[in-house]
Amino acid sequence: MNHLITAVVMTLLPMTALAVDDTPHGTPASTNIPEAQYPCVDSQSRATFKLAAKDAKDVKVDICGKKYDMTKDADGVWTGTTDPLVEGFHYYFLVVDGVSVIDPATEAFFGCGKMSGGIEIPESKEAAAYYTFDKNVPHGQVRECKYYSNLENAERRCFVYTPAEYETSPQKRYPVLYLQHGMGEDERGWSQQGMMANIMDNQIAAGKCVPMIVVMDYGNCGYSFGARKGETMEQFGASFTPIMLEEIIPFIDGNFRTLTDRDNRAMAGLSWGGRETFQTALPNLDKFSHIGTFSGALFLPLDQIPTLYGGVFADADAFNSKVHTLFMGMGSEENFGSDRISQALRDNGINCIYYESPGTHHEWLTWRRCLNEFLPLIFKSDKK
Amino acid sequence: MNHLITAVVMTLLPMTALAVDDTPHGTPASTNIPEAQYPCVDSQSRATFKLAAKDAKDVKVDICGKKYDMTKDADGVWTGTTDPLVEGFHYYFLVVDGVSVIDPATEAFFGCGKMSGGIEIPESKEAAAYYTFDKNVPHGQVRECKYYSNLENAERRCFVYTPAEYETSPQKRYPVLYLQHGMGEDERGWSQQGMMANIMDNQIAAGKCVPMIVVMDYGNCGYSFGARKGETMEQFGASFTPIMLEEIIPFIDGNFRTLTDRDNRAMAGLSWGGRETFQTALPNLDKFSHIGTFSGALFLPLDQIPTLYGGVFADADAFNSKVHTLFMGMGSEENFGSDRISQALRDNGINCIYYESPGTHHEWLTWRRCLNEFLPLIFKSDKK
Repeated sequence: MNHLITAVVMTLLPMTALAVDDTPHGTPASTNIPEAQYPCVDSQSRATFKLAAKDAKDVKVDICGKKYDMTKDADGVWTGTTDPLVEGFHYYFLVVDGVSVIDPATEAFFGCGKMSGGIEIPESKEAAAYYTFDKNVPHGQVRECKYYSNLENAERRCFVYTPAEYETSPQKRYPVLYLQHGMGEDERGWSQQGMMANIMDNQIAAGKCVPMIVVMDYGNCGYSFGARKGETMEQFGASFTPIMLEEIIPFIDGNFRTLTDRDNRAMAGLSWGGRETFQTALPNLDKFSHIGTFSGALFLPLDQIPTLYGGVFADADAFNSKVHTLFMGMGSEENFGSDRISQALRDNGINCIYYESPGTHHEWLTWRRCLNEFLPLIFKSDKK
Repeated sequence: MNHLITAVVMTLLPMTALAVDDTPHGTPASTNIPEAQYPCVDSQSRATFKLAAKDAKDVKVDICGKKYDMTKDADGVWTGTTDPLVEGFHYYFLVVDGVSVIDPATEAFFGCGKMSGGIEIPESKEAAAYYTFDKNVPHGQVRECKYYSNLENAERRCFVYTPAEYETSPQKRYPVLYLQHGMGEDERGWSQQGMMANIMDNQIAAGKCVPMIVVMDYGNCGYSFGARKGETMEQFGASFTPIMLEEIIPFIDGNFRTLTDRDNRAMAGLSWGGRETFQTALPNLDKFSHIGTFSGALFLPLDQIPTLYGGVFADADAFNSKVHTLFMGMGSEENFGSDRISQALRDNGINCIYYESPGTHHEWLTWRRCLNEFLPLIFKSDKK
């Protein structure tokens, strides 16, 4: 290697601090950067992490609400193995002398109000099939679109999934699902952590859902709740609703071949995005007829159902005739109250479908499953 | 705030470690995550970084090949300010007790063979106009496309820029520029670090370049050179050329409204992507007629020009009649030899345009400028 190349490599490309151990602890995670052997996951869903950090005093891995001590070998490489982890995608951090940092071996994901490490704990091939890339089905595209928001006086962007046939059926118009991320995440979440495009491609190819456009925009809740001085819970993310109604929907209808009537417009969101979905869609049933919350951060007073959201639930028959789909899902291991709210709504005569993801927490596997359950319900012609 | 919300916030959203100082050190960088006040940049292009790390012994900021010590205040917050930095985009890391990590306040970018911190040191509005989002021009889309590679037996993805008019001119076909990233980067680089879409939108709107499709795929050089055991310089990234010729071009021509003749196909790349461009395009002039390298990692023996790439330069007249554009650019402050190679090519009778970006190094501002210079030269009908 000549001197110039050596200089280039040394200057531009500090070697990634990846230790290679001859004793494998499992299979490298699919969320790793290219060539990284760690983190890896063993057959019992335990993850092993490594970090070269000879001068650090203390290194831990912080994942799923628990911190695991890592131990240093003679070469200064720290290793730590977790207990068996729940399958699916988890944010995680390494804690180096008290500082929470992203593992240099992981792809980064916007979550936790900042860029975060992430690891996919694999399910069986069968269980994961619905969100796994299938080379034998046609693939849609996820388009990054930039637009200018007059309300925010700033550039914004959304990601728009178009089904494979969108390219080859230039006269056809499509229903639209507006799909929101949660608190501390942004418009990238559904594509990256959520495997949205694979779920859509697979369902459309199998005829389980109708071909549709999916719009993922920023819910104005990407930072941690309370990070802005004096912001109340009611104010947090509330700026999103007018942007959605006055700017995002017109932008999408103006730039994509959409069906623009209420029967062909859905909104769903996870966690805080579920809260935004109720706040946006329920008072605007002239614009939406399919509504979903996935672990929605709703926290509704169950004894006041008839007065919520301007009394939209007060006349159950009127509501049921307008709303073709009302879906609430969550994980069996989280305590977000979707089961109790769904039951309270049904007790008030409201048609509401409840889905519980077995064994999962407030995490992306819950939300992938919720999306997978929600999609076949919406835009069915027999409901209109 | 009720207990459930408190629990949610505490569990899911560890507060970002952002210190807010009442004495501003400048303007928050455009590359920061939402709400982050640091890093910020002052009027002399000095960047100030902060990190809350009360238990760390030593924290530095590592940027542009130089490490700056940071100092800790009584609250355990470390602060460090750089010397004036070159304008444009720089990768950077914080070094916590010897471990190089991503600042929790920055957006992350795939560079340096892994996810990296990045900071934009702003130019004047005028100088930055060509790569700045302009609300008054039509905006194209950047589409993420997944496809299956039989050569790699794996899923791959590319990003495809389509000009704004692609949506509204459904019969029109477009020339295609294949645009490659450098070593340690990937298919995201040109969109994120390179501001490609803004450059395209602005040039097309101003009539400076013709509307075209731009394809950004992975050059198989996203890890650090030498990370794979026994891989030689010649082997590094070499698997990309057959994928480009046998899979990427057919995929693009099969899924987009492209012009498929050689007059309407260009290839360019930065650094190692420039090397891949020469390796791919020069032996295949039946497929490409516009070629660019931006700080290309070529390292050519200048006394052997006529024998390089199968002797493609041996007959200058033949070469000049086939290749409508041969462009080489680099920064004035780097030493990648593009000036000497370009001169040697001209000495051999080859038409070669050389561009030097004033004041810049082996960095993205050089490559944004190179793209901006290259685009107006290609696909001009008077050259065909």
